[in-house]
Amino acid sequence: MSRLFMFEKPLGMRDTLPDLYERKYASRSLIQEEMKRWGYQFIETPTLEYYETVGAASAILDQQLFKLLDQQGHTLVLRPDMTAPIARAAASKLLKNELPIRLAYSANVFRAQQREAGRPAEFEQIGIEYIGDDTISADGECIALMIQSLQAAGLENFRLSIGHIGFVHTFFLQILGTEERVEALTRFLYEKNDVGYREHVNELPLSSIDKQRLLAFLMLRGRNEVIEKAFGLLENDLGKEAVIELQQLWEMINDYELEDKVSFDLTLVSHMSYYTGILFEAYADHVGYPIGNGGRYDRLLQKFGKQAGATGFAIRLDRLLEALGGNADKLERSSCVLFSPERRKEAFQYAQEQRKLGQKIVLQDISGVKDIDTCTSKYDDITFLVGKAGKEAFR
Amino acid sequence: MSRLFMFEKPLGMRDTLPDLYERKYASRSLIQEEMKRWGYQFIETPTLEYYETVGAASAILDQQLFKLLDQQGHTLVLRPDMTAPIARAAASKLLKNELPIRLAYSANVFRAQQREAGRPAEFEQIGIEYIGDDTISADGECIALMIQSLQAAGLENFRLSIGHIGFVHTFFLQILGTEERVEALTRFLYEKNDVGYREHVNELPLSSIDKQRLLAFLMLRGRNEVIEKAFGLLENDLGKEAVIELQQLWEMINDYELEDKVSFDLTLVSHMSYYTGILFEAYADHVGYPIGNGGRYDRLLQKFGKQAGATGFAIRLDRLLEALGGNADKLERSSCVLFSPERRKEAFQYAQEQRKLGQKIVLQDISGVKDIDTCTSKYDDITFLVGKAGKEAFR
Repeated sequence: MSRLFMFEKPLGMRDTLPDLYERKYASRSLIQEEMKRWGYQFIETPTLEYYETVGAASAILDQQLFKLLDQQGHTLVLRPDMTAPIARAAASKLLKNELPIRLAYSANVFRAQQREAGRPAEFEQIGIEYIGDDTISADGECIALMIQSLQAAGLENFRLSIGHIGFVHTFFLQILGTEERVEALTRFLYEKNDVGYREHVNELPLSSIDKQRLLAFLMLRGRNEVIEKAFGLLENDLGKEAVIELQQLWEMINDYELEDKVSFDLTLVSHMSYYTGILFEAYADHVGYPIGNGGRYDRLLQKFGKQAGATGFAIRLDRLLEALGGNADKLERSSCVLFSPERRKEAFQYAQEQRKLGQKIVLQDISGVKDIDTCTSKYDDITFLVGKAGKEAFR
Repeated sequence: MSRLFMFEKPLGMRDTLPDLYERKYASRSLIQEEMKRWGYQFIETPTLEYYETVGAASAILDQQLFKLLDQQGHTLVLRPDMTAPIARAAASKLLKNELPIRLAYSANVFRAQQREAGRPAEFEQIGIEYIGDDTISADGECIALMIQSLQAAGLENFRLSIGHIGFVHTFFLQILGTEERVEALTRFLYEKNDVGYREHVNELPLSSIDKQRLLAFLMLRGRNEVIEKAFGLLENDLGKEAVIELQQLWEMINDYELEDKVSFDLTLVSHMSYYTGILFEAYADHVGYPIGNGGRYDRLLQKFGKQAGATGFAIRLDRLLEALGGNADKLERSSCVLFSPERRKEAFQYAQEQRKLGQKIVLQDISGVKDIDTCTSKYDDITFLVGKAGKEAFR
């Protein structure tokens, strides 16, 4: 084991310094307010969960989990996502009377990095979980709220891609016949490897019609014309239900007047293995990976003893900030009062008055400053309250 | 290993449900705003740190650390406090030009519990670190800001106890002669065990005058008369500097006009081993343990390669909420629109208008609700937009 330098942080771990902190804080607040206006209630869950319960229910690869043993010998994990912990909390305490519940969170999640890849091992997600409502209206609300959350944060140029994992699975299974073959082909979608997908399809022992259908499947990307094309690829009623859901969703998004912000991509799949139906990803211009994603997970609550459909989404705050760009608003005016003991009380009173007016003001004992010039250059305003003279302001 | 019930959480880990979440959120925001008005800048540090660096610099007992191994074989800890991580971040990135810096944080910290003692293993601290200023003004600012932070959160009945670990150490060492004996006697202070302290002193091989001085030390609790008494216990100049600091601090607190909120307790010591000078704890009526504490730590930054004095404090948000009491303000009026597909668009538009006015409103597809009566009983206002009739409000 190499000797650690005292300033080092663990792999993928980062400090958030003041400028970035304030940008995160502002975006988080705007999104939280929007979610609350839609009736979502925020909750917090522990950073550590049991591996056997929440760890096993999450969709994150085992090698990405931070694991530790507690003093009772149980394996704990640092939560790798928030959907499974919230499902646990909802199932144990919040789901009552079979009523839909709307929960929200902003929390850090943890995913171990194998080696330095520039990716954070801890990052903040802000999201919602809408539990106990099986209607397509719930899916529509998630998509609308994700769009309006991003807009609330000030993001303009972004788009949601909508798919349906149930459609992909049913369509593939009908043609390929076995789960293993479905999984093999789906992996190309997950990797967004169209070339590999085509080669794989061409090597499959299928009729040319079925090969053609599988290749045409890759074309199911675009606006609402995709829905008609998807109907056209079906041989019989299998898969029809999923496409009808997409049709209904499209109508609903039109009722929200948000159709400009969405497109369909039926090749969309997710590494989140718990998704069962409609799923979606948000992309912003100039950011090469999704800034958020979501979807329906109708079987996760079962793992915590409840039968309840659910849908939700999470926004990655770090990626959202990247999409918003680094143009931090000009920081507020900063003021400092430098005082000596003789006029300390006057300085305190002056600062207190300014703060009551909502002004930020630093009170600084001048004898605590080794280099006055550098100190004064740090602030927009400096007020000297030193010696015996009247109050003087140098600007 | 016993079989885990699927709803269980690790020992000492808790969910924060919506009502408590909102109370935490409100108190945290009020305190953050106050700290910002004093010119403190918020930062965030990773949840995980290296055991060899930050873990070793923290003052938390080894058995209370949550430890894990990363994939490179290094031992990591879940941060047990924020002072050491902020010292690391300040030393590596923020301390420049020998200027004082004012940093703040609100963050969860982690302390493993040996057995179920009702104590949380993860809790939130909100605090500040004022680094690079050796003046007593820095100590005074910390105390004033802690008082005003608690007041900003709405707490009225509380008091800060102020001590001086440097005074205790110098005074004891002068009489007892060895660090071992100092440590043995100090332990009784840490346990707040006056009876044990007296018995221990009486058994020591000391002159009756020295025993009397050690017993009189226990009386150094009260208002500013304590300062004179402390001077009176000194034999020579050793320890005088510390008492002069307390005298200056008292004058400064008077200049802040906060003298009603503080008292002295020179028997105050702390399990935080890095404290070197003035230290303090905040107590609220009806809460049996400190709701926050702080003090000067002039040697911690050295561990990260910088020579810089520092002082700071942390408020425990869970204990502050306990002190504030459970009287959650009446929750905001909650409204729900129940809609059917025919009038969905009208419902969306109505909700959107209400939200633009800052109202919270839940949009609910009526077919997603199994029990309408229970649903309607949950809200103050219900608007039905179903079927073909005009908009009707039932209240």
